[in-house]
Amino acid sequence: MLKGNAMVGQSGGPTTVINASLAGVIKGAFEASEIQTIYGAEHGITGVLDEKFVNLSERFADPAQLELLIHTPAAYLGSCRYKLPKEFNEVFEKVFQVFKKYNIAYFFYIGGNDSMDTVHKLSQYAKMTGYPINIIGVPKTIDNDLAITDHTPGFGSAAKYIASSIREVARDAQVYDSNTVTIIEIMGRNAGWLTAAAALARTDNEAAPHLIYLPEIAFDVDKFLADVEKVSKKYKNVIAVVSEGIKTKDGLYVCEGATANIVDSFGHKQLSGTARVLADLIHQKFGWKVRSIELSLLQRCAAHIASLTDVTEAEQIGTAGVKAAIRGETGMMMYFKRVSEKPYKVEILSHDISTIANVEKIVPNEWINKEGNDILQPALDYMLPLIQGESTAFFENGLPVYLKR
Amino acid sequence: MLKGNAMVGQSGGPTTVINASLAGVIKGAFEASEIQTIYGAEHGITGVLDEKFVNLSERFADPAQLELLIHTPAAYLGSCRYKLPKEFNEVFEKVFQVFKKYNIAYFFYIGGNDSMDTVHKLSQYAKMTGYPINIIGVPKTIDNDLAITDHTPGFGSAAKYIASSIREVARDAQVYDSNTVTIIEIMGRNAGWLTAAAALARTDNEAAPHLIYLPEIAFDVDKFLADVEKVSKKYKNVIAVVSEGIKTKDGLYVCEGATANIVDSFGHKQLSGTARVLADLIHQKFGWKVRSIELSLLQRCAAHIASLTDVTEAEQIGTAGVKAAIRGETGMMMYFKRVSEKPYKVEILSHDISTIANVEKIVPNEWINKEGNDILQPALDYMLPLIQGESTAFFENGLPVYLKR
Repeated sequence: MLKGNAMVGQSGGPTTVINASLAGVIKGAFEASEIQTIYGAEHGITGVLDEKFVNLSERFADPAQLELLIHTPAAYLGSCRYKLPKEFNEVFEKVFQVFKKYNIAYFFYIGGNDSMDTVHKLSQYAKMTGYPINIIGVPKTIDNDLAITDHTPGFGSAAKYIASSIREVARDAQVYDSNTVTIIEIMGRNAGWLTAAAALARTDNEAAPHLIYLPEIAFDVDKFLADVEKVSKKYKNVIAVVSEGIKTKDGLYVCEGATANIVDSFGHKQLSGTARVLADLIHQKFGWKVRSIELSLLQRCAAHIASLTDVTEAEQIGTAGVKAAIRGETGMMMYFKRVSEKPYKVEILSHDISTIANVEKIVPNEWINKEGNDILQPALDYMLPLIQGESTAFFENGLPVYLKR
Repeated sequence: MLKGNAMVGQSGGPTTVINASLAGVIKGAFEASEIQTIYGAEHGITGVLDEKFVNLSERFADPAQLELLIHTPAAYLGSCRYKLPKEFNEVFEKVFQVFKKYNIAYFFYIGGNDSMDTVHKLSQYAKMTGYPINIIGVPKTIDNDLAITDHTPGFGSAAKYIASSIREVARDAQVYDSNTVTIIEIMGRNAGWLTAAAALARTDNEAAPHLIYLPEIAFDVDKFLADVEKVSKKYKNVIAVVSEGIKTKDGLYVCEGATANIVDSFGHKQLSGTARVLADLIHQKFGWKVRSIELSLLQRCAAHIASLTDVTEAEQIGTAGVKAAIRGETGMMMYFKRVSEKPYKVEILSHDISTIANVEKIVPNEWINKEGNDILQPALDYMLPLIQGESTAFFENGLPVYLKR
């Protein structure tokens, strides 16, 4: 049984619940007699290289602070986009020198695809050099695009925010008695999970959003215009949801000028998002009032409307990661296995990370309708349990209270 | 004492609490023995002209439905942007024919500046023709730009959403250890109240947002770039908030090409928002990662994080409007008078609408700092009571539940 200190880092784009996972790791470390002190590496693996640490054992000695951390969005320790080199070079040497210096026997990394690559490489290097350390990946990404796991922590809260906001925006956009089209753009370059979550807004049997376009299906501008025209005959105020990553069959992003031959006055490509380009096309073709809305960062940090299921699971999977490491596991990612649909129930297990790192899980084709402009019931059945329960964020002075550094 | 039926309409851009005011009017009508049936005009005054009504007495016979209406964002009756003609022509004749046909003795109109103009003209026409009807305006606008009233229903909830969201986005935008600038664009063409509300995010003593630009102050692009550079020396991740309506000293909207001589590749004016233009400028000048976020419709319909103070007051001012009409008042707008600061307390009074219609109340100069890039404490003291308390929206299946038509 390894004994020593532990270190944890956060990496990649933050989420609403990445700090809940951090809190879970800290709690797990507090409970483990094998772990003396737990350090937080600032800005992910770059904090290890730069020896920038927070002593989390001291910082979170007060349980109330840990409770506040659970509800605080964005990466408390800071994040990075740093990817380790392909060769086991001096960067690895440096990381393990630091591990040795601080007597690190356990390393936990909370992140998405790229971060799991880091876990993979570090654990391989440790095995190769015989350095005694157990390294575990804790999954995190709003994009829900990690392999093996039923879903990723962060997805449920983003999905809840997206569905709630679209339900509200649809109400607002439908007050006028004239033709309007509102296009809402959702994150997810290659995987359409979050865009699909927009359909949850309809679980009260309202019709909006009327059209949903995922990046998994090649986007056809003419088909899109025809779709909008068709819907507009039944609903004067059309609500369409698009992924930021939709591409034409030629592989061109819509936001990068796929429509350049149609919108010839469109000069400054970087300035325009996907929704904006499409809204402009609609306006040009039909003359209707249009509006484009990007949910942008809002969708990944709205802790005030986090999914309690997501928050709880995110914390649990962090703690489970520590337990797995203590058991002697290394080079593994923790994941959720859905063991029951009704009632929804997951188990937290671990899986060899080499088959997870750098693999993207996209929305299966059979969950998308034939027209390619909506999702099907199995996708809703899959997502609905993940947005259940409301976060119990604290409010003070009328605003949600988050932890200070 | 007039006896007969009542009619109510909603007009202008919807808000999170305009339906709470509608519920207040309905409750007031239910309590008044002088009112037999209350009708809702669909899409504001155009619903009167088209005789498109909802029988609200029937629709809301069940108090649970009325309770749900209170928490439902956007105009339940639909809205319009219709402005009555300047001359008392056949349009007025038609309106009053309809009033007569349906035995309307009380008319309530919930809206902003333009809607108060409608109330003003209709009440003048009634006086001129001797038609027995009492007409009352119930204020509504997220922009908070109505004269006489301390604040408008709708502002507090939008302010709460803006401050909460910016607090969350600031967390997210500050996770990286490299220079970034995030520019957030807020509604309010001429009045900067909502933009000022961004400063409420700092009431927990965090530094973000670091810069706030209101439309009341002429915007200087060079000064802005210098401001951002200065802040970046202390904070690597700069958060700046701008009103959609900021203009240069020459009166050009920033979003309409005020920067055209600087960004010569900027071809398609309508495609770009203010924040996007400024983010692009920053990127060009400093090469930093930038992000622009428009809160768009989200800020006026986020009922899931409505201010309970706002919701409650919006309902109360609706009911007060009915009571004023029953007392015999007409051509008046209801308004809030702040009678105590600590504790915050308002009285609901009525005021001759002729001095309110078409007047815009902007943020006073003495509440803006000398640099023109932030607001001062009195503005915070004024706004803070308006965002207090959390709405008690119902959740079902993980999402907020709103009333169906």
